[in-house]
Amino acid sequence: MADTLADLAAQLRIDSIRCTTAAGSGHPSSSMSAADIVAVLFQKHLRFDFQQPKAPNNDRFVLSKGHACPVLYSAFKAAGAIDDTELMTLRQFGSRLEGHPNPHVLPLVDVATGSLGQGLAIGVGMALAARLDRLPFRTYVLMGDSETAEGSVWEAFDKAGHYQLDNLCALIDMNRLGQSTETELGWDADAYLARARAFGWHAVAVDGHDLEAIDRAFTEAQGKRGQPTCIVFKTQKGQGYSLIANQPGWHGKPLPEDKAKEAIQELGGERDVRIQVKKPDAMRPSGQDAASALKLPMYEVGQKEATRKAYGDALLALGTARPDVVALDAEVSNSTYSQEFKKAHPQRYFEMYIAEQNMVSTAVGMAVLGKRAFVSTFAAFLSRAYDQIRMAALSNATVHLCGSHAGVSIGEDGPSQMALEDLAMMRAVGGSTVVYPSDANQTAKLLAQLVECQGITYLRSTREKTPVLYPASEEFPIGGCKVLRQSDQDVATVVGAGITLHEALKAYALLKEDGVQVRVIDLYSVKPVDVKTLRKAARETQGRILVVEDHWSEGGLGDAVLEAFTGERARLPTVVRLAVKKLPGSGKPDELLSAAGIDAEHIVDSVTSLVEDSPLDTESDGRPEAGTWGHTNA
Amino acid sequence: MADTLADLAAQLRIDSIRCTTAAGSGHPSSSMSAADIVAVLFQKHLRFDFQQPKAPNNDRFVLSKGHACPVLYSAFKAAGAIDDTELMTLRQFGSRLEGHPNPHVLPLVDVATGSLGQGLAIGVGMALAARLDRLPFRTYVLMGDSETAEGSVWEAFDKAGHYQLDNLCALIDMNRLGQSTETELGWDADAYLARARAFGWHAVAVDGHDLEAIDRAFTEAQGKRGQPTCIVFKTQKGQGYSLIANQPGWHGKPLPEDKAKEAIQELGGERDVRIQVKKPDAMRPSGQDAASALKLPMYEVGQKEATRKAYGDALLALGTARPDVVALDAEVSNSTYSQEFKKAHPQRYFEMYIAEQNMVSTAVGMAVLGKRAFVSTFAAFLSRAYDQIRMAALSNATVHLCGSHAGVSIGEDGPSQMALEDLAMMRAVGGSTVVYPSDANQTAKLLAQLVECQGITYLRSTREKTPVLYPASEEFPIGGCKVLRQSDQDVATVVGAGITLHEALKAYALLKEDGVQVRVIDLYSVKPVDVKTLRKAARETQGRILVVEDHWSEGGLGDAVLEAFTGERARLPTVVRLAVKKLPGSGKPDELLSAAGIDAEHIVDSVTSLVEDSPLDTESDGRPEAGTWGHTNA
Repeated sequence: MADTLADLAAQLRIDSIRCTTAAGSGHPSSSMSAADIVAVLFQKHLRFDFQQPKAPNNDRFVLSKGHACPVLYSAFKAAGAIDDTELMTLRQFGSRLEGHPNPHVLPLVDVATGSLGQGLAIGVGMALAARLDRLPFRTYVLMGDSETAEGSVWEAFDKAGHYQLDNLCALIDMNRLGQSTETELGWDADAYLARARAFGWHAVAVDGHDLEAIDRAFTEAQGKRGQPTCIVFKTQKGQGYSLIANQPGWHGKPLPEDKAKEAIQELGGERDVRIQVKKPDAMRPSGQDAASALKLPMYEVGQKEATRKAYGDALLALGTARPDVVALDAEVSNSTYSQEFKKAHPQRYFEMYIAEQNMVSTAVGMAVLGKRAFVSTFAAFLSRAYDQIRMAALSNATVHLCGSHAGVSIGEDGPSQMALEDLAMMRAVGGSTVVYPSDANQTAKLLAQLVECQGITYLRSTREKTPVLYPASEEFPIGGCKVLRQSDQDVATVVGAGITLHEALKAYALLKEDGVQVRVIDLYSVKPVDVKTLRKAARETQGRILVVEDHWSEGGLGDAVLEAFTGERARLPTVVRLAVKKLPGSGKPDELLSAAGIDAEHIVDSVTSLVEDSPLDTESDGRPEAGTWGHTNA
Repeated sequence: MADTLADLAAQLRIDSIRCTTAAGSGHPSSSMSAADIVAVLFQKHLRFDFQQPKAPNNDRFVLSKGHACPVLYSAFKAAGAIDDTELMTLRQFGSRLEGHPNPHVLPLVDVATGSLGQGLAIGVGMALAARLDRLPFRTYVLMGDSETAEGSVWEAFDKAGHYQLDNLCALIDMNRLGQSTETELGWDADAYLARARAFGWHAVAVDGHDLEAIDRAFTEAQGKRGQPTCIVFKTQKGQGYSLIANQPGWHGKPLPEDKAKEAIQELGGERDVRIQVKKPDAMRPSGQDAASALKLPMYEVGQKEATRKAYGDALLALGTARPDVVALDAEVSNSTYSQEFKKAHPQRYFEMYIAEQNMVSTAVGMAVLGKRAFVSTFAAFLSRAYDQIRMAALSNATVHLCGSHAGVSIGEDGPSQMALEDLAMMRAVGGSTVVYPSDANQTAKLLAQLVECQGITYLRSTREKTPVLYPASEEFPIGGCKVLRQSDQDVATVVGAGITLHEALKAYALLKEDGVQVRVIDLYSVKPVDVKTLRKAARETQGRILVVEDHWSEGGLGDAVLEAFTGERARLPTVVRLAVKKLPGSGKPDELLSAAGIDAEHIVDSVTSLVEDSPLDTESDGRPEAGTWGHTNA
């Protein structure tokens, strides 16, 4: 065995060198340290059907150290899944073999990696999905040693230990060298072992270039019950080529052609070893319940209910109708109301405690294996997982996010708990869908549509109870909006969503008393935005639009409305934005909406000012100086 | 001693109950578990001059579990720093005593807390600052047990262990109960101890309601050399009132008036104990070097240099001129070029390894103690620390962020390494300043201004070398822009910044060959944006503006330009946006700029199309459906 494996490992190194030298960039040294681990795993332990990469019983392999993808691509070649010609297209425009793994183009990988420290959390999701579906596959996550500095890694260690995921195996390629300096822990395997064990793992250290020791460690991990296993492999970066092995200064550098030649010679020359990766056992019946008809919750018009509660009710309904729905929450299920789902479907609810990064990546791991994952916490705290959300989009994962307690209207808890940047953040996620319902029926109807969407979806919910505006029969297509008030006398359009829509409706009534007619639009679909209706409203309301939002003025509803008026054949109307511009404090919701200038009274004032015959002012702007911002209470 | 302390602790509990019951919201039970710890610390160990809260020798106390602020405010009252009348304004509009501590209004606290898991990392920054300035103060961080689920906490444990911060003390209030459920580790003190020790800490567990044991633990921590100390306090949530002590369901709930009365009675009734908090020793001379004149680097026009390199050069120059400048990097100093500073000022460079969350919070800890902290990593990975950045703004901290490797122009590494959302993210930070230089001299000049700004500043740098456009003598005021090309024949304005400005200049030349004159604007100041110049350009170039950016179309340069045309009296141009709309892949920078539709050729095409006599189209929009996004290589 050792001979074939050694041959294979040498080939993985050689191919990693060949393709990176051809590309003129990439990470051969980080690939070479991991080559023996990958060789043993693929040849002896991984059970994977390359003809059916998405087969439910396939073991999963996550290359968390995504920059080492040359060794993975080389293993794919050895397994016959790609050919040498394709391997040599690494990093070229149009190649499926990007600089870091990307499942959009290469379905052989499940997730995008390259932002370090996310793979293990994804593996936690895969391992939890396996357990949920009673599938026997194992999940292997290959990590770099540098990335264990990321806290997200310890969130994942913690969760895997907590959930006793003995179907999960973490592989740490302890090659001692980071990008610019030695790692914090160097070759101190005992330090890694102590950390893994303190988080509830079985942990062993082995020589990562001793093929038999590697083999034994994998076997040991497979036999371990009740605990995940972490294998710490002591390796050398650049192992196999004496010039660079264990030398600093070779991170992310391809070998020049002469050095590549020398290295390949030292490694015994090019060869064509093939791996016969074992296939998994035939799929067992999943025993999953059949889907049933969706029965969304319904609320009476005029009743007061918080949209966060409607989220919980609708999530429960979705979960009852669809056995593929899972829910994750960061220990605030009694605030987000995902507890409604938790109570009814405890086996499909996953308590992620206060660890938002791991929560999102775990959802990604479940999602790419077919679950419809709903993730909830306070909207402010989703900012904790922005990198994970960004990467989830790159992973082509469908993950449904819900952020509660948005905006100043949460009241007394103060600004640390108020999401004021969540819309900006979520709009700027590739391919995302962003909705912001204003009433309970709308929330339910939107959630039922989001579950059919691809990619990252975001629903912003509100803490306060607000009146139900729409009958339960109303439809709310994503990409649409609702014109709630209109006449042929409208002198302006007021656009709101969520909490501010209610303020806009109050303002409408006040203005109407004064004989001023305005159009009121509920812009529940923030991305995509209803271009057609907004343009029509601008045309029909004298080109005046007032947008009011419980969010910083950057990146939210206002920017979404402006977007509708861009393009060659569009022209901007007059757009006035009411948004949060000063740091809010604590107080009652009404006090804070007023202090932020986004309540009915301020809408009335702004409309009044807007419809006055103001001359164009093109010289001055009246904006604050850089870096100044006040406090509303000051 | 025990009697007075017990009396004080009872008073802290009573006052925590009184003020939350008066407020009708807040977290008495979480305050009560910590009351004995706070009483002993304030009475016996903390050295703090309440007359001079910012005195350099004061010990620092960070309440990481910010929701327990009633006990902190109650301690401030006992120390005479606030009075009972003010205490009873808790959570009211206009009060300095917000639902979570906020230094904008209450200078007695150094930082805003309330997003859990950030306090220890801030403490790391304070402890590093103490060491740097050879100041003898100690930093205490009081954490909840639930928040140890946050990975950021383990990043901080890791760094404090790595840097052997024996002037730092972490206090874990292990009260077993989270918001909605029991914590993962319950009362398993050994698990906490094992984790802390595995990360290099001295760690002890004590009964958090045994005043003498608490006292001894603090004394032990003060005596420990070469290691930070973690004290795990076994406590009961709601301790002191038998009805709620150690009972679930009382998180974040004030006691109703009758129960409050009962609790106060059980606690022995109201009293007025005063703490005489010890003052620190008189300030020793810091021995800090004097500031010297700033000598910024200079580059020749036409020379090619990357703005990331200019960032490093300018940071070095700032560091040489100003002894208060410190730099932190997430192990990519050879990519961001903060290595230039590191080489010259190693004692003021802090290697934060791949742990962006801790890096930002550590910078906050240093910043609030007077350092000018510069933080750099790949722009994409600053998304990892968005919550920390958000909270840094709430902390009123001045932190200078630099994100390198922005946009598709990084080339072969692929989308995981490309920041395409960073401008959206940074614009939506309260009070932030955002700049995006296009050449080396501009970078240096902007950095020299940013160091004078308050709040969060962000500089976006570019991987590729680009030609120097401006002489070293040029000035670039923040809030301004540069009109690089203009004539009285301009038919449109092209706005670019950073890498796309160079494409805009190429497009200008191509268009000019065809007899088409356009204005070209370098919008280096993204927030605040130069409203006046943009409006003037729109007026003078037939109301046509084309914005081109290496960023998703949401939240970046395009939205910043649109912002300039909002407001009652704005004149309204046609705005066309070229931005990244499909998932990029790997490839050469030029290939990727072209594939994203943001290179010179696409600018030429768009201008040409824009100036053709297109009718306004207000009916259709031609936007993609929700949830669809392609891949440029597909």
